Amino acid sequence: MGINEFHTKLKKGPLNLITDVEGVQIGHVTIEDEDIHTGVTAIRLHDDIFHEKLLSASYVINGFGKTTGLVQINELGTLESHIVLTNTLNVGIAQQSLVKYMLKHNPDIGNTTGTVNVVVGECNDGYLNDIRGLHVKEEHVFEALDNASKEFTEGNVGAGTGMMCFSMKGGIGSASRIVHLDKNYTIGVLVLTNFGSFKDFRFQDMDTSHLSIKDYLRKDQGSCIIIIATDAPLSSRQLQRMTRHVPVSLARTGSYIGNGSGDIAIAFSTANKIPHYPMEKAMAFTFIHENYIDLFNRAMVDACEEAILSSLMHSSTTTSKGRTVPSLKDLLKQ
Amino acid sequence: MGINEFHTKLKKGPLNLITDVEGVQIGHVTIEDEDIHTGVTAIRLHDDIFHEKLLSASYVINGFGKTTGLVQINELGTLESHIVLTNTLNVGIAQQSLVKYMLKHNPDIGNTTGTVNVVVGECNDGYLNDIRGLHVKEEHVFEALDNASKEFTEGNVGAGTGMMCFSMKGGIGSASRIVHLDKNYTIGVLVLTNFGSFKDFRFQDMDTSHLSIKDYLRKDQGSCIIIIATDAPLSSRQLQRMTRHVPVSLARTGSYIGNGSGDIAIAFSTANKIPHYPMEKAMAFTFIHENYIDLFNRAMVDACEEAILSSLMHSSTTTSKGRTVPSLKDLLKQ
Amino acid sequence: MGINEFHTKLKKGPLNLITDVEGVQIGHVTIEDEDIHTGVTAIRLHDDIFHEKLLSASYVINGFGKTTGLVQINELGTLESHIVLTNTLNVGIAQQSLVKYMLKHNPDIGNTTGTVNVVVGECNDGYLNDIRGLHVKEEHVFEALDNASKEFTEGNVGAGTGMMCFSMKGGIGSASRIVHLDKNYTIGVLVLTNFGSFKDFRFQDMDTSHLSIKDYLRKDQGSCIIIIATDAPLSSRQLQRMTRHVPVSLARTGSYIGNGSGDIAIAFSTANKIPHYPMEKAMAFTFIHENYIDLFNRAMVDACEEAILSSLMHSSTTTSKGRTVPSLKDLLKQ
Amino acid sequence: MGINEFHTKLKKGPLNLITDVEGVQIGHVTIEDEDIHTGVTAIRLHDDIFHEKLLSASYVINGFGKTTGLVQINELGTLESHIVLTNTLNVGIAQQSLVKYMLKHNPDIGNTTGTVNVVVGECNDGYLNDIRGLHVKEEHVFEALDNASKEFTEGNVGAGTGMMCFSMKGGIGSASRIVHLDKNYTIGVLVLTNFGSFKDFRFQDMDTSHLSIKDYLRKDQGSCIIIIATDAPLSSRQLQRMTRHVPVSLARTGSYIGNGSGDIAIAFSTANKIPHYPMEKAMAFTFIHENYIDLFNRAMVDACEEAILSSLMHSSTTTSKGRTVPSLKDLLKQ
Repeated sequence: MGINEFHTKLKKGPLNLITDVEGVQIGHVTIEDEDIHTGVTAIRLHDDIFHEKLLSASYVINGFGKTTGLVQINELGTLESHIVLTNTLNVGIAQQSLVKYMLKHNPDIGNTTGTVNVVVGECNDGYLNDIRGLHVKEEHVFEALDNASKEFTEGNVGAGTGMMCFSMKGGIGSASRIVHLDKNYTIGVLVLTNFGSFKDFRFQDMDTSHLSIKDYLRKDQGSCIIIIATDAPLSSRQLQRMTRHVPVSLARTGSYIGNGSGDIAIAFSTANKIPHYPMEKAMAFTFIHENYIDLFNRAMVDACEEAILSSLMHSSTTTSKGRTVPSLKDLLKQ
Repeated sequence: MGINEFHTKLKKGPLNLITDVEGVQIGHVTIEDEDIHTGVTAIRLHDDIFHEKLLSASYVINGFGKTTGLVQINELGTLESHIVLTNTLNVGIAQQSLVKYMLKHNPDIGNTTGTVNVVVGECNDGYLNDIRGLHVKEEHVFEALDNASKEFTEGNVGAGTGMMCFSMKGGIGSASRIVHLDKNYTIGVLVLTNFGSFKDFRFQDMDTSHLSIKDYLRKDQGSCIIIIATDAPLSSRQLQRMTRHVPVSLARTGSYIGNGSGDIAIAFSTANKIPHYPMEKAMAFTFIHENYIDLFNRAMVDACEEAILSSLMHSSTTTSKGRTVPSLKDLLKQ
Repeated sequence: MGINEFHTKLKKGPLNLITDVEGVQIGHVTIEDEDIHTGVTAIRLHDDIFHEKLLSASYVINGFGKTTGLVQINELGTLESHIVLTNTLNVGIAQQSLVKYMLKHNPDIGNTTGTVNVVVGECNDGYLNDIRGLHVKEEHVFEALDNASKEFTEGNVGAGTGMMCFSMKGGIGSASRIVHLDKNYTIGVLVLTNFGSFKDFRFQDMDTSHLSIKDYLRKDQGSCIIIIATDAPLSSRQLQRMTRHVPVSLARTGSYIGNGSGDIAIAFSTANKIPHYPMEKAMAFTFIHENYIDLFNRAMVDACEEAILSSLMHSSTTTSKGRTVPSLKDLLKQ
Repeated sequence: MGINEFHTKLKKGPLNLITDVEGVQIGHVTIEDEDIHTGVTAIRLHDDIFHEKLLSASYVINGFGKTTGLVQINELGTLESHIVLTNTLNVGIAQQSLVKYMLKHNPDIGNTTGTVNVVVGECNDGYLNDIRGLHVKEEHVFEALDNASKEFTEGNVGAGTGMMCFSMKGGIGSASRIVHLDKNYTIGVLVLTNFGSFKDFRFQDMDTSHLSIKDYLRKDQGSCIIIIATDAPLSSRQLQRMTRHVPVSLARTGSYIGNGSGDIAIAFSTANKIPHYPMEKAMAFTFIHENYIDLFNRAMVDACEEAILSSLMHSSTTTSKGRTVPSLKDLLKQ
């Protein structure tokens, strides 16, 4: 491998979103009303995800979090459901709703075959949202799943509605990169950002030292959920290595990975599908040789950094519960 | 340490139940109606578990399971909620209900302080239960928590109502052991058994080769949840080592730890409590010196083996969905 | 998959040794002289192991041990050197010698390509061996590697010379099983046994309660190294799952997995070879579908249990340092 | 905790070296001759480290490495030997030498008590060093240990003699920070740097885009060993969390954590000592409450970043094997 490949500035996908990876769609439901600023974001995979599982891996960067579904991903290296993101105290209802959704679309689950492992990620939006009110309902989860599409909004939308990042308004962000090896592969990242302290923020090479914010003295707590999709044929072990590179992206935006932050990465590849009902006892796979893995890890690092910044750039100043959290866009106008 | 300590047959606690550990109570709700055989079992800790957390650890023996709440236990080494067990597809509702229960009893959660990490374990009772019906409701979880007491029933009760173990009727089992070191310590185990294939079953030194069962050719799938409580002052690292000894107990009863089994152990110690709002920045702890740790691990192994066997011995032959799963008690009468 | 496959008593390989797996050879050097009872055992793989790596995994059952080389196996999922076993304090010289051996046979290492990850496992033979004397030398390691063959001796030989197991003479043991799926696959296990307390010993269904031993009150310390070879096409993740089943085998022989025991399993498959210098950027693999993985795990559990018992049955009563450790064979004559 | 504590620029220790932590000393032996540029660096702890163990933890950031001794640290949470750093192919001789050193100073090891777990870290200095020549000898390890002192040299010295970092001359770097909580605590970091690609390098806020280097197109391979010392009373779990923050420091200097890099962090605290021969069965400990852990993690992140940069700033342009690796100092004069 020529070294120059590393230093080529990587191209972005056509949408510069996680949905540049074929088969990935995103749906949001935003719930807003006075002190309520919360919602649901669905990462929808192909329709028959349960019977054609994807290779997958996860990594707990900092485990002060309540994401569910990782035990089975870690054991079997496969993802067999769509993924739902919401706020911390609604993980239960989101999980139950996603189970119902999977039951509805798969009559064999819990009947002629086993159960299903669903995945729900979360951040705490309690600063701007009446999180104790448990405002997410089953219909929100169903709607987010059913409305998913390739084009979607970033910023304070869906699960990101009430989130904050570096003491500014955070939420949903996404970006993608194209890796050219023997052919073109796409890596897409979607983040739900809710971490960081204002003074730590780094916006690439931009000098942000003149920005000021009233309420910047919040602790670095919250969380960040990072969903990584690729069509490159990576094994679950290789995907796991990739997830362990997410701290590089977090660090580039200034994060120290605070104690109170549940920073959790989940990666999957659409390249090799694992049948629930196998036709053959031994299956054929294709995987990238480890010598080329840096290309993919670096693309992910860049896309993930951009996704975090994108979540900030797409958010709007929000007032709730008597608190105002400014957007980066508005701060830059100062 | 004299070696003889190892080979003394350990005494059992007064109840020979997990509740021999002070501060631990168990509550069941059993839900039965035609094809419905399911329920909820609550491991209730002291009332203010959120503000006085317990040191804790978990170990995934085999991760084909959906237990939730382990990420934070692994990171922080603490348990801050009661634990609820139920069937696989009801983890979501159980989690949501346990969150509501914690919110009700802790007005600060999600208001003036952060959120709460709740723990829900599960096995798949779909062979004897209409698991797709999602029959567990919020009130069942609340009732199990509120009715918890030191004395409790084993066998096909609570979360164990529809479970099967070694192709026989399984469910809830429990046992305890007393370890004498500088003083007496108690180790209690509660299991939810739903694993194993009949031909593999080993009942200590008893010859069971004459037992026969019509439906024994079921695969070793299902799961086993193992809850370990102790008042011995063990660190989260020591508790984690203890959980890694659970496969010894499983193996003694004949398990090969099947692919489809979600075998998950969670341990906690009531000895050192971690305040949510610390008075001091540096805290005093007491821990057993590692040289004596075998005493505790061996006591756990014995109690866990007995708890599994106890779940079988306390269960009754059950018919549901046109299937009959015999109890060990009835088989032994053959 | 029919369930009956599980309960068919599995056939053993032609030698009932790890070397039933094509491409695996074992070499011993035994070093004995007065208080010296130690040695080296080499697990020799195909000649070009560095350039054609094997998929591999490891699991630390209990980490009171000094085995080296696991970090890279865990990260890359590959094994790129032969494996050497010896006593605890000679891991360094064994590692250095194995590095020299790999350098001698691979002129590119450390020259035109990177370095090499060698694997050395160990147990503490200090009860019967002058372990402080550091009696293993470079020539012993080379000789064990060069003399490796398909047929080899078990018992107190090679690295097993000074080991003890359940207070009896332990050492090297091996066994194999044939799994029939779409075709026949072989699983072989080699163990270096140095763990367990006499009172805990379980010899399958044999009643050993009449056996007595003067010095049985030794603590369960020492270690057990378990090497698992197979020609079945298992991924590194699947091999890792397999290694996590080793505690079942240990438990069946009576082990409680003592605090002081470094119990470490390493597995590899000869089916998919990973080229050091890849011809293609994306490589083809074949793997067993997870639904059939139990067959392999169960075969390993049985072979591993037999290998441990075989290490005992092949050992001879040994006297050294004024201590006599009886063999199981001699005890059974009582 | 006031948030301002986070944003106070932390003071450095009096030497701004790892040896600001009481009880830590560093010794180097540099081996240079024509194509030989290698050496040994010893992290020497208090004399009776074997009998008074330190709490410790490790984290494998990227496991393409050969560091030895981590298995036992991970299991027991303790460090019982000094630490030696050298080149990759000399880990064996360094380990054997460190074992001999520990045997010499501890007559009970391998005699009346068990063995000793020694720790050796490594990077590959083969670009500038005849690494196949295996030039490190026992006397170098002994000398590095015996000559250790509080003041020591950084840059291309000891184990750092032949290393390179971001395609420039790397080696040994160190820094420290003071954390004020209830009292002052010190955190010190020592790194052995051998990673990174020139184009990726970030020197804090300094613009380095004008720097050029002939040979910059080297892949990001090599490794980085990070040793973290503190006198703050942190548990092994808390130390493990701290090690997981090292990727933040690596990322700040520009690293993408390359596939070929063995990036491994080891942390220890001198605050709680664990006796090898315990006087009491239950021991008293003091630990920082988790709410304050960010202060320590952030101090480590800053010290570690500075240590990496310090390794570059203290190194000199080196020519060997017909190759010249420029120092950052010389590049900055361009």
